Amino acid sequence: MDGIRNICDRPKNTNIKWSLPAVCFVWQLSMIILFGVFVRYNEESDTHWVDYRKEKNITSDIENDYYFRYPSFQDVHVMIFVGFGFLMTFLKRYSFGAVGFNFLVAAFGIQWALLMQGWFHSLDYTDGKIKIGIENLINADFCVAGCLIAYGAVLGKVSPVQLLVMTLFGVTLFAVEEYIILNVLHAKDAGGSMVIHTFGAYYGLSISWVLYRPNLDRSKHLNGSVYQSDMFAMIGNLHYILLLDCTLFLWMFWPSFNSAIADHGDGQHRAAINTYLALASTVLTTVAMSSLFEKTGKLDMVHIQNSTLAGGVAVGTAAEFMLSPYGSLIVGFFCGIISTLGYIYFSPFLEEKLKIQDTCGIHNLHAMPGVIGGIVGAISAAAATNTVYGDLGLENTFDFTGPFAKRVPTIQGGYQAAGLCVALCFGIGGGIFVGLVLKLPIWGDPADENCFDDEIYWEVRQTCIKATQLKIHSDS
Amino acid sequence: MDGIRNICDRPKNTNIKWSLPAVCFVWQLSMIILFGVFVRYNEESDTHWVDYRKEKNITSDIENDYYFRYPSFQDVHVMIFVGFGFLMTFLKRYSFGAVGFNFLVAAFGIQWALLMQGWFHSLDYTDGKIKIGIENLINADFCVAGCLIAYGAVLGKVSPVQLLVMTLFGVTLFAVEEYIILNVLHAKDAGGSMVIHTFGAYYGLSISWVLYRPNLDRSKHLNGSVYQSDMFAMIGNLHYILLLDCTLFLWMFWPSFNSAIADHGDGQHRAAINTYLALASTVLTTVAMSSLFEKTGKLDMVHIQNSTLAGGVAVGTAAEFMLSPYGSLIVGFFCGIISTLGYIYFSPFLEEKLKIQDTCGIHNLHAMPGVIGGIVGAISAAAATNTVYGDLGLENTFDFTGPFAKRVPTIQGGYQAAGLCVALCFGIGGGIFVGLVLKLPIWGDPADENCFDDEIYWEVRQTCIKATQLKIHSDS
Amino acid sequence: MDGIRNICDRPKNTNIKWSLPAVCFVWQLSMIILFGVFVRYNEESDTHWVDYRKEKNITSDIENDYYFRYPSFQDVHVMIFVGFGFLMTFLKRYSFGAVGFNFLVAAFGIQWALLMQGWFHSLDYTDGKIKIGIENLINADFCVAGCLIAYGAVLGKVSPVQLLVMTLFGVTLFAVEEYIILNVLHAKDAGGSMVIHTFGAYYGLSISWVLYRPNLDRSKHLNGSVYQSDMFAMIGNLHYILLLDCTLFLWMFWPSFNSAIADHGDGQHRAAINTYLALASTVLTTVAMSSLFEKTGKLDMVHIQNSTLAGGVAVGTAAEFMLSPYGSLIVGFFCGIISTLGYIYFSPFLEEKLKIQDTCGIHNLHAMPGVIGGIVGAISAAAATNTVYGDLGLENTFDFTGPFAKRVPTIQGGYQAAGLCVALCFGIGGGIFVGLVLKLPIWGDPADENCFDDEIYWEVRQTCIKATQLKIHSDS
Repeated sequence: MDGIRNICDRPKNTNIKWSLPAVCFVWQLSMIILFGVFVRYNEESDTHWVDYRKEKNITSDIENDYYFRYPSFQDVHVMIFVGFGFLMTFLKRYSFGAVGFNFLVAAFGIQWALLMQGWFHSLDYTDGKIKIGIENLINADFCVAGCLIAYGAVLGKVSPVQLLVMTLFGVTLFAVEEYIILNVLHAKDAGGSMVIHTFGAYYGLSISWVLYRPNLDRSKHLNGSVYQSDMFAMIGNLHYILLLDCTLFLWMFWPSFNSAIADHGDGQHRAAINTYLALASTVLTTVAMSSLFEKTGKLDMVHIQNSTLAGGVAVGTAAEFMLSPYGSLIVGFFCGIISTLGYIYFSPFLEEKLKIQDTCGIHNLHAMPGVIGGIVGAISAAAATNTVYGDLGLENTFDFTGPFAKRVPTIQGGYQAAGLCVALCFGIGGGIFVGLVLKLPIWGDPADENCFDDEIYWEVRQTCIKATQLKIHSDS
Repeated sequence: MDGIRNICDRPKNTNIKWSLPAVCFVWQLSMIILFGVFVRYNEESDTHWVDYRKEKNITSDIENDYYFRYPSFQDVHVMIFVGFGFLMTFLKRYSFGAVGFNFLVAAFGIQWALLMQGWFHSLDYTDGKIKIGIENLINADFCVAGCLIAYGAVLGKVSPVQLLVMTLFGVTLFAVEEYIILNVLHAKDAGGSMVIHTFGAYYGLSISWVLYRPNLDRSKHLNGSVYQSDMFAMIGNLHYILLLDCTLFLWMFWPSFNSAIADHGDGQHRAAINTYLALASTVLTTVAMSSLFEKTGKLDMVHIQNSTLAGGVAVGTAAEFMLSPYGSLIVGFFCGIISTLGYIYFSPFLEEKLKIQDTCGIHNLHAMPGVIGGIVGAISAAAATNTVYGDLGLENTFDFTGPFAKRVPTIQGGYQAAGLCVALCFGIGGGIFVGLVLKLPIWGDPADENCFDDEIYWEVRQTCIKATQLKIHSDS
Repeated sequence: MDGIRNICDRPKNTNIKWSLPAVCFVWQLSMIILFGVFVRYNEESDTHWVDYRKEKNITSDIENDYYFRYPSFQDVHVMIFVGFGFLMTFLKRYSFGAVGFNFLVAAFGIQWALLMQGWFHSLDYTDGKIKIGIENLINADFCVAGCLIAYGAVLGKVSPVQLLVMTLFGVTLFAVEEYIILNVLHAKDAGGSMVIHTFGAYYGLSISWVLYRPNLDRSKHLNGSVYQSDMFAMIGNLHYILLLDCTLFLWMFWPSFNSAIADHGDGQHRAAINTYLALASTVLTTVAMSSLFEKTGKLDMVHIQNSTLAGGVAVGTAAEFMLSPYGSLIVGFFCGIISTLGYIYFSPFLEEKLKIQDTCGIHNLHAMPGVIGGIVGAISAAAATNTVYGDLGLENTFDFTGPFAKRVPTIQGGYQAAGLCVALCFGIGGGIFVGLVLKLPIWGDPADENCFDDEIYWEVRQTCIKATQLKIHSDS
């Protein structure tokens, strides 16, 4: 019971009584003011829709973008708030921090994202207002996803205030990077392999690198899955089933993630099919690798819980393209292998050699597959042909219209690759900058020996008392 | 292990062997007969839809109401059966009762609701039949939601038979109240702040007031969250994560709840946006208040698990209106504060002074936010202008047609307020009446010392035996 | 702690280090090759959709089949991967195997199903390619559902390799059986009472019969719900809540299951309503029976967790038909009774007399309700009249077109009954054959005393060590 006793008489050095409420109130009030000044409904969510329908000869309400995107939006929403949060609950004593702060960060992030992305993408120049609809909500969720991925790298080592700061900067950087990649370079990235996963992962890894804690091993006894915890097998099992449950929700809803903002009609349809296939193929190779690299050929839950998702990340950019079903299977095939190897060999190397402490192993689940996704996207874009896409199809899929009417697939491939580089630069550069900001000693982050411990920021006193009583019970 | 031992040799005084099966069989048979006499498919779910399409010149099957509402319906369904049920599983030994009886009550309630609401809203006078479609299913779920909210106040203190009686009356009262508010007063209440939350909450609180148990403290050792339970911290954590999981499902799907029966097109679209924003804003103020009112600035899970939902309740009535994005943020802002304060200060006052034992604190999550929602609805309706809504938009949003063609926004505001009063009267009046019915000594409800205990109505004997064995193990 | 100790020093006789990875890699590679040769996008998921729309005068992208079926598809996906998997996690030490292998089997099965069903249903004879869209994804999930039902009968007694073999054959048999029933006999089976549930259940039961293990009682201490486990009541509760949660997800999403591939418009609409009602009615009779057959009238979670779903299975075939609301209630009414009685009386008989070891009791949840569903379908088809359906409606519902233009309802009823027989024959015949294949001593299946134990195939060593340490702790 030592573990339990020493969390009870552990020193508290992280009072956020004033800073956290202050930040929450001030930021929420600023959101209200900024929304009051800038944000309005767009023509599809405004009561003027009835007039708009008339003048645009839209035959039915069902053609409102809401009905094209709402089902995918709800699935994405589940992935952001439950999926990402619960995937981080594997630590022995940090489940509240994982889910609770994920919740707080996301709730703030989506508001700031609506503004930042709105200024870049949905600003109505006639009246200087941001006009929002369902697609903006999805993009806000996507933007926050980038920050939550980054959270995975610093999980348990930062204070909620630091997280909010990290999100403020993260969302801002994301919006700029996204604007450059999608609008300036005119690259396509429906599932966000580059914009979301590559950026988010390297943003988090760079922050973690700057915030390197040499003495983190002092709280190593808390950094580890429930499986090395001094609890009954049964509890470990239950916890692992919960984790697998959330992995499955991410796995099942990933087709919605990659198709949520794809083109209406065949675009969304194809994105869902490609993701469905890539993910299925990843599962088999992950299981194979996991069994192959364990002495006795047994399966390791950690691989099943993480690497099975890599295929969805890697097919993100190309999901909309005519990747073709077997193409998706191939992408998934290799991502399952690479991601699992990452957990076995690369993560330890990352920590010992590169001094990057990646709590959740986001490098294996988001960074590497994200980069692969960008490359796959560039290649499949460069390889696009009129025979496969059809003249009209090619124009629709890559939006070769207006200023980009002259662009051809090979050139598009180049711009896709450029987009990947932009995502990497923003991720690494932004991460180092924000990391330095977070190094300031004003954020109430935990000492090395208190990392990975809910006790610092959550009211869990009674538990200790009771657990100690239990100790007495079981001794008596 | 005392806690475990004494639930094993606790007296059983609550045999429902005959009453429960009898009630279930009789009521289900009556449902079959009444459905046989009254309920048929409506023109959109009947095979005659193909003819109907032709004569109404509907160009595509996709314009069937099913495709407008089914995705929201499924989300609402999840909220009713999982969300509401699991939000009540925080008691140490009453999780079966919470989820299991929630399931039973809802399954019966939706059938009775289809009939009651059908007679008032979907009766086809040509043949005297109730014609049902997807919207009726959603409304039935909504109706049941009112009764499940009420269940939250009496959780652990009533027998399943009492619950079924409570639901029978609750659904009946709901249907009448809903008819008066929506049809007679012609008030709008898409998200049901008044019709569902205000009514349901005061219905439950009044019942709980009538059924006041002075000696409830005898089972107080069972009334409390798993956190004061004599179990390992780890189990408490797992349990709390499960609770937070269900909170998140309610939080994520609330936009579907408020938009499910809103007007096609911009109505549903706007309702989803407003709810999304209100809920985001609530999270930040809830976190701020929770941290502010704890000695050391730590966060209390109980607040995060409940108050973060208040914004969704409070924006229910006005969700369809042109509340504007910042309006939604403001509503959410204040609800997070008020609801959290409710848990800190008002709940104790309610129990000690007003003798209302509110097991789940529905007063803070449904009653207060519901009333706020009604007021917000009245104000925003009264403030509606043609410039903001557009002539056509104003007419569509408030259905100023037929007998109500002459009505203007200011008048509408008055009727909205009147609707709120009706909901309060039906909730309190109906609750007191049903409470008196439930006081009859024929329902097999538990004695004061047996409240909050699954052992009374569920087969959990083995557990005790085994747990005692375990005690022996750990002693040996 | 004996239980925990002896799983640590239990003999390992089931090395799958080479067989499992080999099978996974080889099969996944074959999938890639076969997909490369055969599978392409169909006209609704291909970039040529824009041209297709033009030539077919489709007014809007919203009429792409994706928008008719995607929401139901996601719900079905959740049922297959979470619902079916978690419903099997009731064993003391086999939760990893239940969910993990369910995941593996499903991920492989859907790929093989896309090919097998594609050859039979979606082959484009102009270019010999299989053209897939959202409906194929749903059908692949359905096909896998059959195999997962079968898994329920042999849960804990087979190796992952055996499971994959079982799935390979199962999917193949399913595709042939489905082709005969739906295309040759032209029977209708929207919810798959016959095609999925009857076939899957008897396929699994026959395999289990062939693989009968006389000495299974040696691992009986592991075969049993967490409720007889030597763990705290609290953990048992948590585990049971998790189980009930997944039951509820199956229960809530069953309307999507039965309506997913029903006809556009009224077909899907009606299927959802019928399933919603049948399931509601099943809950009440299940509760009634459960209470009636317990000595003290208490409720048994096992019944609530399984029998409440029987109504959804039994209404599968007729869900599309004009079964009428009260008809659905009646079906659900009887299925609740029959299924609960099955768990109380029939399961023991099945094991002792017929030597069929049915781990999950699929006979009560899928076999019996499936057969009932087939019969209900046959009767309601035979009873169909032009007055009820309308001439056009009758033709649409039963596809009395082309070669079947002359068919009348009574005849259709006969063919429905024939379809049920085909499902039974394929299930039993195929099961016996595959069972004999799986009897070969090359599959690394566990010895009788090691059944129902994750330890054989999963890396759970630490737990044992730690749990033993804990033992020491609590002794000291």
